[in-house]
Amino acid sequence: MRVNVALDAMGGDTGPDVAILGALAAVRACDDLHVILIGPEERLKARLAELAQGDTAAQAQVSVYPASEVVTMEDMPVDAIRKKKDATVVVGFDLVKKGQADAMVSAGNSGAIMAAAVKKLGRLPGIARPGIASFFPTARNRPVMIMDIGANVDCRAQHLYQFAVMATCYVRRVLHKEHPRVGLLSIGAETGKGNALVKETFPLLQASPLNFAGNVEGRDVYRGDVDVVVCDGFIGNILLKASEGLGEAALQMIRGEILKSWRARFGYLLMRGALAAFKKQVDYAEYGGAPLLGINGTGIVCHGASSAAALCRACIVAADMARHDINATIVGLLGEYRVEPESAAP
Amino acid sequence: MRVNVALDAMGGDTGPDVAILGALAAVRACDDLHVILIGPEERLKARLAELAQGDTAAQAQVSVYPASEVVTMEDMPVDAIRKKKDATVVVGFDLVKKGQADAMVSAGNSGAIMAAAVKKLGRLPGIARPGIASFFPTARNRPVMIMDIGANVDCRAQHLYQFAVMATCYVRRVLHKEHPRVGLLSIGAETGKGNALVKETFPLLQASPLNFAGNVEGRDVYRGDVDVVVCDGFIGNILLKASEGLGEAALQMIRGEILKSWRARFGYLLMRGALAAFKKQVDYAEYGGAPLLGINGTGIVCHGASSAAALCRACIVAADMARHDINATIVGLLGEYRVEPESAAP
Repeated sequence: MRVNVALDAMGGDTGPDVAILGALAAVRACDDLHVILIGPEERLKARLAELAQGDTAAQAQVSVYPASEVVTMEDMPVDAIRKKKDATVVVGFDLVKKGQADAMVSAGNSGAIMAAAVKKLGRLPGIARPGIASFFPTARNRPVMIMDIGANVDCRAQHLYQFAVMATCYVRRVLHKEHPRVGLLSIGAETGKGNALVKETFPLLQASPLNFAGNVEGRDVYRGDVDVVVCDGFIGNILLKASEGLGEAALQMIRGEILKSWRARFGYLLMRGALAAFKKQVDYAEYGGAPLLGINGTGIVCHGASSAAALCRACIVAADMARHDINATIVGLLGEYRVEPESAAP
Repeated sequence: MRVNVALDAMGGDTGPDVAILGALAAVRACDDLHVILIGPEERLKARLAELAQGDTAAQAQVSVYPASEVVTMEDMPVDAIRKKKDATVVVGFDLVKKGQADAMVSAGNSGAIMAAAVKKLGRLPGIARPGIASFFPTARNRPVMIMDIGANVDCRAQHLYQFAVMATCYVRRVLHKEHPRVGLLSIGAETGKGNALVKETFPLLQASPLNFAGNVEGRDVYRGDVDVVVCDGFIGNILLKASEGLGEAALQMIRGEILKSWRARFGYLLMRGALAAFKKQVDYAEYGGAPLLGINGTGIVCHGASSAAALCRACIVAADMARHDINATIVGLLGEYRVEPESAAP
């Protein structure tokens, strides 16, 4: 089955070259993948021809679809997608809506990507709030999925429950783990610990058909004991950015300590490769992006600093999501256990 | 001025020896400090005599006050301090109440420490919710104070405002920084970003006499651009434990990478000292504890895994807090700007 993935060529922090290189790498890896670059037509076509370096087979699997505007990181999401009707994110999700693309990938303003997705594709039936899920590295060498990482602040118990359902479906269909363990982010492992939202969400998860592992604390996130961690988007976003910030601060502190001694400097030269491998393992710009879950279609948000390799992976994952029809799985699992109507109001 | 600090000898994970060694180190560093070890009298007196190793001057500055019970990490805080009337934390704060000690330090169950402090000493006038503040390392080599780190979940705007006042007073009086920069933890630096609580707290901080630097994101916490970060205790606790967990996971991952090559192993041997120095910088068991702020007295909570050096520092900091009468400063600054009565309800 041929899958068409629309890729926002203007989304990243570093211009369209990484997107073009990412698209070429993705189609070289997958025969049945076609990538549609969204952005300024002539400029993209010219750079595509240059960067393909005569690989006409790959070049034939990448096309360009014109879009004249870009939503910047500074733009207010909802405002921007209303005013900039020809913005890459709007055009991309419009292609998905029209069936010309099966999925959309962008490293742009995540709020605008979510807003454009909801506007063009709508929510899945029964989903109160679509969200964004992301992967964190763990000590066990397999990532944990956190949802939501910022699309929804001030969530209700039903929203968190639905995040758990959606993330479970993703892990089941894309990572092929049949019964992912779901943790509820809280401040104590014991039942009954947490804030009002956690206390209300706990029984919903416990009564559900999900593989609920109970509360997990902040320190457990990176342990790799659970496959999914659900939380309010406010906390998820703080956790995501704090992890990134702590990683940066740690490397800066280690560098400072190393510069204090020649012995340590020499040691650093010898173990530089190991540190680089570690950095790659935790660098979330290297991950294959954060899927939007709960929209009636397929979309992936990538980090603004994504490399061509990260965008390549995101295109392949997006194609996988479309192929496995995660959304049908979500709607099916949601139907198995419905929460009462009064807490079901958005 | 002689200061008496009560130290819970049974609070840490590793038995009373670290507390005794911490007390001896603290009195050796400060002539006008007296430490009262709280716990099983005969056992503590015998170990104190052994561990003092003939240093009668130091030994004379440390005394023992009997307490026969211990609140464990598994105990429910409020329940435990009601039932265990002779628990070290209860006895310690009772000494503070009776004026026999100026401050109390414990590495025990933080919920029980807070509960005992509030029960014995009460809240400061005007304070709706006492909280626990803690320090995080930053890339700028000076720690940032985070409040609250877990005493209060489901906070209101007035609580966060009061956390900012209390943390400001601590930084001003103990760290001698006259106008500490205060950040409000949120998911975007721009005004108007965040959840309902943040949006309600922002104008209170802005209108206050505090040095308010606006919203800070998760990644900014470790940058060292602000001196104080205020947040709900639910998020603060998750942030604290996630930082600890990420640090552990990172070291485990780096170790895994190093073991893959002999070259890296040799490099590691050479830079081991630098890595240990880094570990010490981020290890929050090494910090001088987390002050309770908002109680009508002085108390410090230490990490359960605190070393003797960490407990020594905590005793010295507790003495400093008592000497500088932070509580008078808090009451004074709180009086300068009062939030309206309707949001002032606890």
